Amino acid sequence: MKLVRYGNPGKEKPGLIDNEGKLRDLSAVVKDIGPDQLGDAAIAKLRKTKVDKLPLVKGKPRFGSPVANVGKFIAIGLNYADHAAESGLPVPKEPIVFMKATSCIQGPNDPVMLPKGSVKTDWEVELGVVIGTKARYVSQKSALDYVAGYCTINDVSEREYQIERGGTWDKGKGCDTFGPIGPWLVTRDEIENPQKLAMWLDLNGQRVQTGSTKTMIFSVAKLVSYVSQFMTLMPGDVITTGTPPGVGMGMKPPLYLKKGDVMTLGIEGLGEQRQDVLPFKL
Amino acid sequence: MKLVRYGNPGKEKPGLIDNEGKLRDLSAVVKDIGPDQLGDAAIAKLRKTKVDKLPLVKGKPRFGSPVANVGKFIAIGLNYADHAAESGLPVPKEPIVFMKATSCIQGPNDPVMLPKGSVKTDWEVELGVVIGTKARYVSQKSALDYVAGYCTINDVSEREYQIERGGTWDKGKGCDTFGPIGPWLVTRDEIENPQKLAMWLDLNGQRVQTGSTKTMIFSVAKLVSYVSQFMTLMPGDVITTGTPPGVGMGMKPPLYLKKGDVMTLGIEGLGEQRQDVLPFKL
Repeated sequence: MKLVRYGNPGKEKPGLIDNEGKLRDLSAVVKDIGPDQLGDAAIAKLRKTKVDKLPLVKGKPRFGSPVANVGKFIAIGLNYADHAAESGLPVPKEPIVFMKATSCIQGPNDPVMLPKGSVKTDWEVELGVVIGTKARYVSQKSALDYVAGYCTINDVSEREYQIERGGTWDKGKGCDTFGPIGPWLVTRDEIENPQKLAMWLDLNGQRVQTGSTKTMIFSVAKLVSYVSQFMTLMPGDVITTGTPPGVGMGMKPPLYLKKGDVMTLGIEGLGEQRQDVLPFKL
Repeated sequence: MKLVRYGNPGKEKPGLIDNEGKLRDLSAVVKDIGPDQLGDAAIAKLRKTKVDKLPLVKGKPRFGSPVANVGKFIAIGLNYADHAAESGLPVPKEPIVFMKATSCIQGPNDPVMLPKGSVKTDWEVELGVVIGTKARYVSQKSALDYVAGYCTINDVSEREYQIERGGTWDKGKGCDTFGPIGPWLVTRDEIENPQKLAMWLDLNGQRVQTGSTKTMIFSVAKLVSYVSQFMTLMPGDVITTGTPPGVGMGMKPPLYLKKGDVMTLGIEGLGEQRQDVLPFKL
């Protein structure tokens, strides 16, 4: 299933994209798409819904993040060897874990705002993994059983804040609007192999990132298992799994986002995002 | 006011400690103590409650974290010059920001569990700041207006995970049970000066940390303002503001927690915590 949340910010309704690509309303079936709707039993129940009986939604509503009430927004750094190289950093021996502030989460097509005074805001197309079942010390072999599904994420990053302002990367990763998620949460039964998904990001119509999840250093199963050794993963937690090469920081000279830029990005089977870049406003 | 949440994990009720130190139930006045109860208007309303009419709670119930539904658990590193020295790290030029997983939050007297295989779990008594009003790009001068109140926090830390496993500190800061908060959320009107609070931590009855918030490098007002430049602070977010010297990592030789240890800690006016140290169990 392709699950979505649609409508105005803070008032999103649950929905589903049918086999013809049409948006149908799920409000009569579930209250929302969040921690309580992501476990295997809840998804199995949802799968029994007679899709052709669900009301079609008219018009072109906004999409919100397809997951509500994300408890932890965990991120993996340098998970593609060629991205580590372009960042001038060694390939990590074990996964690099950092956190994005949950307050940065937004819909896939909401504008990205440059923080006040920012001159190094950058893009990162990434595979997002949504946890469905509480996971703690899970093995790599069983790790994917704890996943509800997958989504496209833009791990927007301010490189000066991330790297030059001291301390951890978290400072440059959680600014408002730095976490577009969606459009869809695609349940894991529809993704035969999460390590075989093409991904791309265009800046103003020009391809800058091209990659595939097949070149990840640490697989999704490894990451879920690994992170679960350090903290309990809860339903609705999101792990964004690192970006392939082609970020602005890695260009010579580096290229960063400016007002008026447009990012379009997507992952095979998980849908596309489009963000206008705006100056910060309250 | 000294606000609390009491009862079994996940079923806590709101309460208040009266002037005689007695626990009274607030369930008839508010649903919980969380983001919706922390703004100035909500707290002003709560302050009008006739405390002597509130039902006294019998027995000695468990305390939970005095804040429910914490969205972000933000932490400041090396915010006391002498703690930076004992950690062998330079005094930071600007605040070091990292994040604790919200899933590590627990009551002030719940046991702390050593992660599986952990040999370097350590303690850190810290002043916790609970946000009451959404704060984004706020000035240092106005920053305390956005604070609902203060609490005692033990920023439990696994030093191997934090420092030796690559990437950011987040890996060693958010393990389950690593975030005891409380017992009380003391509203800011009761804390005349947050930079004048004595703090201490005893390990098995022996004093190991002694400090005062007066020796912070960056004040609470500075920290709230600073963090709000990088992310929006939401009601219910918690910032834990760094620890004074005396952690296990800084001892010669280093001393880490083991099964059977007992930590007791407190901050002047904010109440005390007590944690038994246990091996990990599901």
